[in-house]
Amino acid sequence: MTRQELIQLIHARKSFLCVGLDTDPAKLPAHLRIERDGIFLFNRAIIDATIDLCVAYKPNLAFYEALGLDGLRQLKMTMDYIHSLQKPVFTIADAKRGDIGNTSERYAKAFLDPTGDFNFDSMTIAPYMGADSVQPFTVYPGKWVILLALTSNKGAFDFQLTEDSNGTPLYQRVLENSKQWGNEENMMYVVGATKADMLSEVRRIVPGSFLLVPGVGAQGGSLEEVCRYGLNADCGLLVNSSRGIIYASNGTDFAEAAAREAAKLQQQMAAVL
Amino acid sequence: MTRQELIQLIHARKSFLCVGLDTDPAKLPAHLRIERDGIFLFNRAIIDATIDLCVAYKPNLAFYEALGLDGLRQLKMTMDYIHSLQKPVFTIADAKRGDIGNTSERYAKAFLDPTGDFNFDSMTIAPYMGADSVQPFTVYPGKWVILLALTSNKGAFDFQLTEDSNGTPLYQRVLENSKQWGNEENMMYVVGATKADMLSEVRRIVPGSFLLVPGVGAQGGSLEEVCRYGLNADCGLLVNSSRGIIYASNGTDFAEAAAREAAKLQQQMAAVL
Repeated sequence: MTRQELIQLIHARKSFLCVGLDTDPAKLPAHLRIERDGIFLFNRAIIDATIDLCVAYKPNLAFYEALGLDGLRQLKMTMDYIHSLQKPVFTIADAKRGDIGNTSERYAKAFLDPTGDFNFDSMTIAPYMGADSVQPFTVYPGKWVILLALTSNKGAFDFQLTEDSNGTPLYQRVLENSKQWGNEENMMYVVGATKADMLSEVRRIVPGSFLLVPGVGAQGGSLEEVCRYGLNADCGLLVNSSRGIIYASNGTDFAEAAAREAAKLQQQMAAVL
Repeated sequence: MTRQELIQLIHARKSFLCVGLDTDPAKLPAHLRIERDGIFLFNRAIIDATIDLCVAYKPNLAFYEALGLDGLRQLKMTMDYIHSLQKPVFTIADAKRGDIGNTSERYAKAFLDPTGDFNFDSMTIAPYMGADSVQPFTVYPGKWVILLALTSNKGAFDFQLTEDSNGTPLYQRVLENSKQWGNEENMMYVVGATKADMLSEVRRIVPGSFLLVPGVGAQGGSLEEVCRYGLNADCGLLVNSSRGIIYASNGTDFAEAAAREAAKLQQQMAAVL
């Protein structure tokens, strides 16, 4: 999906909501826990209930890998289902990969290649290994790298905020350097919502880029704060909510409950767009 | 595998060689390229030919993920085969994962859990997200986290060598901080062989830890240099070679050729032990 298509989708749905598919077998409603394809059936119901309210889905790869080959089989079923729909939606492999150039090429192939098993629109990448670890994710037309800049966890303070000898925190150095590796058409950034005030700093460095903002809801971030500091003329935000939506109910009404929670966020988003 | 068991294995085999299973379908010998399980059959032959000469195998996950579910199926076959052997060997999932705590827990389960599909002894982890992204990999008894400190690629210069306001490069800060997250029994470090002279700095901070050193051979590092700066009283090194061993020949004699190249490195290692 190109930048222009994403912006059109945001305006058409009046939403910049990303639904995180952190699907945990232990949290499935009882009637799905006994199904062989319970993870997929859960995801399909969540997607059917929320697709008109959101613009993106973000499966967290760890949740599928933790189930071994069977989890990845159900991730593929989920992606096949999304691709079979007549409705456009942006997809994010939340994979946090990154390795030397010839290895990153293979991770890009694994998740972004249109002929591969998954065919995501984008994937999250860790910057520690630098330019050649990131660039292979920028070469697929209409596909995106989403680079970790500032994450929403406690450990973000360990290195991301470390200032160099010029007083520049590492996350800002990552933003600055990465502008040489990609552009606003193929690179976004992860910026945690729990540090919303730092979004002004982020916007100073990458004013036009899309930001993927996790951590709204269960992780404690505020949508209002994120919008105040993060919105730009093209919206420029994808705000993720996972647990607050997909586990809104653990009964047979889980999909309706998810739609209700997604609608609350979508309405707030419509108001600011 | 515990630290003591690993040290015993190194002395028994007179080797600290790790063979990187970066298995690429395009580089398989012609007679295996036409097999459904060609990747596994290649790996099995390499393992049979080299297991008396090395102490560790390191599948690079990207090579398997690039082939989708079928690649991961053959990775599982490879791990099942290694576990079926009567000979001990250390296994490394070269996965470069790392995410917020509750997600890292799932990556740990995916690769380290003895009841999972893969049951590796260890996995490589990127440090960018800090303490809570790393600690979940340290809780499985006898299993290891191998933290990226200094990598062997060009992009390593982008952030890993950035000095903070005290003049400490990021990779040294990673080493220092990580000592709070694990110990010599459950944490190793990736240190690229192309920067062998920096091994003295690494050894100053983590004198007793094992180091996984990639980049010897095809990536240009010298075994002699690595040993000079990196060896400690317990050996403390796992030196990886991938392409130089597994692609020594692309004919039907590929396994014998791999054994020959592995033996060259093993003999040099025996001489320094």
